[in-house]
Amino acid sequence: MSATPTDRRTQALALLEWLEPGAPERVAENLDGFHGDATEILLGFAFTDVVAREGIPLKAREMLTIAMLAAMGTAPGQLEFHMRAALNTGVTREEIVEIVLQVAVYAGIPASMNAITAAKSAFTSV
Amino acid sequence: MSATPTDRRTQALALLEWLEPGAPERVAENLDGFHGDATEILLGFAFTDVVAREGIPLKAREMLTIAMLAAMGTAPGQLEFHMRAALNTGVTREEIVEIVLQVAVYAGIPASMNAITAAKSAFTSV
Amino acid sequence: MSATPTDRRTQALALLEWLEPGAPERVAENLDGFHGDATEILLGFAFTDVVAREGIPLKAREMLTIAMLAAMGTAPGQLEFHMRAALNTGVTREEIVEIVLQVAVYAGIPASMNAITAAKSAFTSV
Amino acid sequence: MSATPTDRRTQALALLEWLEPGAPERVAENLDGFHGDATEILLGFAFTDVVAREGIPLKAREMLTIAMLAAMGTAPGQLEFHMRAALNTGVTREEIVEIVLQVAVYAGIPASMNAITAAKSAFTSV
Amino acid sequence: MSATPTDRRTQALALLEWLEPGAPERVAENLDGFHGDATEILLGFAFTDVVAREGIPLKAREMLTIAMLAAMGTAPGQLEFHMRAALNTGVTREEIVEIVLQVAVYAGIPASMNAITAAKSAFTSV
Amino acid sequence: MSATPTDRRTQALALLEWLEPGAPERVAENLDGFHGDATEILLGFAFTDVVAREGIPLKAREMLTIAMLAAMGTAPGQLEFHMRAALNTGVTREEIVEIVLQVAVYAGIPASMNAITAAKSAFTSV
Repeated sequence: MSATPTDRRTQALALLEWLEPGAPERVAENLDGFHGDATEILLGFAFTDVVAREGIPLKAREMLTIAMLAAMGTAPGQLEFHMRAALNTGVTREEIVEIVLQVAVYAGIPASMNAITAAKSAFTSV
Repeated sequence: MSATPTDRRTQALALLEWLEPGAPERVAENLDGFHGDATEILLGFAFTDVVAREGIPLKAREMLTIAMLAAMGTAPGQLEFHMRAALNTGVTREEIVEIVLQVAVYAGIPASMNAITAAKSAFTSV
Repeated sequence: MSATPTDRRTQALALLEWLEPGAPERVAENLDGFHGDATEILLGFAFTDVVAREGIPLKAREMLTIAMLAAMGTAPGQLEFHMRAALNTGVTREEIVEIVLQVAVYAGIPASMNAITAAKSAFTSV
Repeated sequence: MSATPTDRRTQALALLEWLEPGAPERVAENLDGFHGDATEILLGFAFTDVVAREGIPLKAREMLTIAMLAAMGTAPGQLEFHMRAALNTGVTREEIVEIVLQVAVYAGIPASMNAITAAKSAFTSV
Repeated sequence: MSATPTDRRTQALALLEWLEPGAPERVAENLDGFHGDATEILLGFAFTDVVAREGIPLKAREMLTIAMLAAMGTAPGQLEFHMRAALNTGVTREEIVEIVLQVAVYAGIPASMNAITAAKSAFTSV
Repeated sequence: MSATPTDRRTQALALLEWLEPGAPERVAENLDGFHGDATEILLGFAFTDVVAREGIPLKAREMLTIAMLAAMGTAPGQLEFHMRAALNTGVTREEIVEIVLQVAVYAGIPASMNAITAAKSAFTSV
């Protein structure tokens, strides 16, 4: 975290590459087209500051992320991205099924149904 | 799931006892005072139908639950309960810290701050 | 709706009296202490413009209101108020029980548990 | 509720047929393609355990459902489905209009505007 | 606010014309196709009763609106509309960038990312 | 942002002192009692990375923050804190009144009523 802004951005994109190979180019281009600091601030916080921390393995972090995004229900695009990222970091389809069913308990059946849509899409693309 | 309603209720309360020893009496009394079917329907769905399923260990399920409740931010009482349940099922304080920091990424700093309050309360009571 | 602001405020408070006898004084004092227009704008919209409309009886409107507030989970005080208002406008305890169980389907078990707390409080006070 | 899993699934799909003729095949195929237990767990809870209960007629339950989904705003697909289901179970267009206007009071104008989109789509398709 | 319903509707649509030239026809046609009172009740409350008030300039109100809609995350269509309306009422692109980054602090990175999508779309169309 | 972690923490607490004199000690003690990195990660992101940026004055940022927190409705404690911080950074009571009324438009009357409670509390304490 004492990294320069350039390091912080680089580290964030390196972690993003683990979540989905090829994603860093697309995501950075999208954010750079908005503002030159957006990649470092948003992805630097998300990935360099937090997700890259030790204490919980990346696979478990992706399980938490899809649970949160599915429960909140306000970011369907990111939910589908993290469904793929979960598979890419070693989460099994069986585990995703269980997470999605558990979403129904805490956030309701429609939230779970939406997560099923995202999961099925990820299952066919990864 | 082919259990009689009585079995379904009994199994739900048995799992609740794992989450927090002594909780079943208190929770069932609360729900029975509302309606005689509430314990079976609500806890039967939550615990007998879903949380008791194999595929994800109970410890990991509690990690997911506190992430979802913290991200949603609408059930502070249940969040604190599941912080204690997480500790009771083997989640470490370090893991709870990491989950709470990750909540900041996906649901914002205030959601994370509220989860810190819940976690600190659980840390002192378990 | 072609009423003067004074009429609009008066009509809103008259409907509020149906929801809970004695509430208009308390609520208007609270809002007047914030800004002199708040009662007319907020309650005038809520009650004079919308809830007083024909097409759905007041009892059914209160059922809808407690369902929405319970599902959203962000206004526990108003949820408890409208639990009492529901009882005051003819909603039965059995109907409230059913609404609260249905909340679990669409918004999850914690939302339903919080609604149980509000309902039980209303049951003892009305 | 002492039904076997097969009965519970069958009963859920039978109620779904009342909500929208032809929907059970489509919905069950979607859920079966995710996991063999999903139909029973999700629809069994929603429809067999809760919505099929007595105490509130199905028509009133659909009014509550569209109010909740519109207020939450996180499941536009299900909102439109339940707009159609409301019409199919006897809710009138006038009642849907009133519900949608009441959503504005409790969840804001944008939530109501989104519900108008869903309602208009249902009005043209049922 | 002592306006007749017709005045209230007219004033709301006049303000909407400031937010996006040409929008009143499209929005009123959409709402009139739902119910003849919808424009007056929904837009009359939003624009005539509240947004047209003095105390905060229209430009600052649009900044608040895009912050709220981005943080709530449940009305992506209205968020994009108000991104354009913000530009039309004098909010600069730099200010929108700052608002969107601040959304990340209070509502999380995915909410901010969705707001970036809406902002970029508005930037190309206004 | 090329600051060391120590600098980033220090800068965040310095900005917090502007929001509410005396707050840094209390907030840092709270966060330090949770984890030694929490102050830097959470407040460093919120204040050093984002809120301290140029492009929008601090006063306008606090207006945005109370609008977002009021609309989300999930952090009543932080909402009241930022009501005080808004006053401390030059937002007038009249402006807060207008923001709170505008919250009703986009997030509903209950969200606005809760914000009135927070505002009135801040008005008496600052």
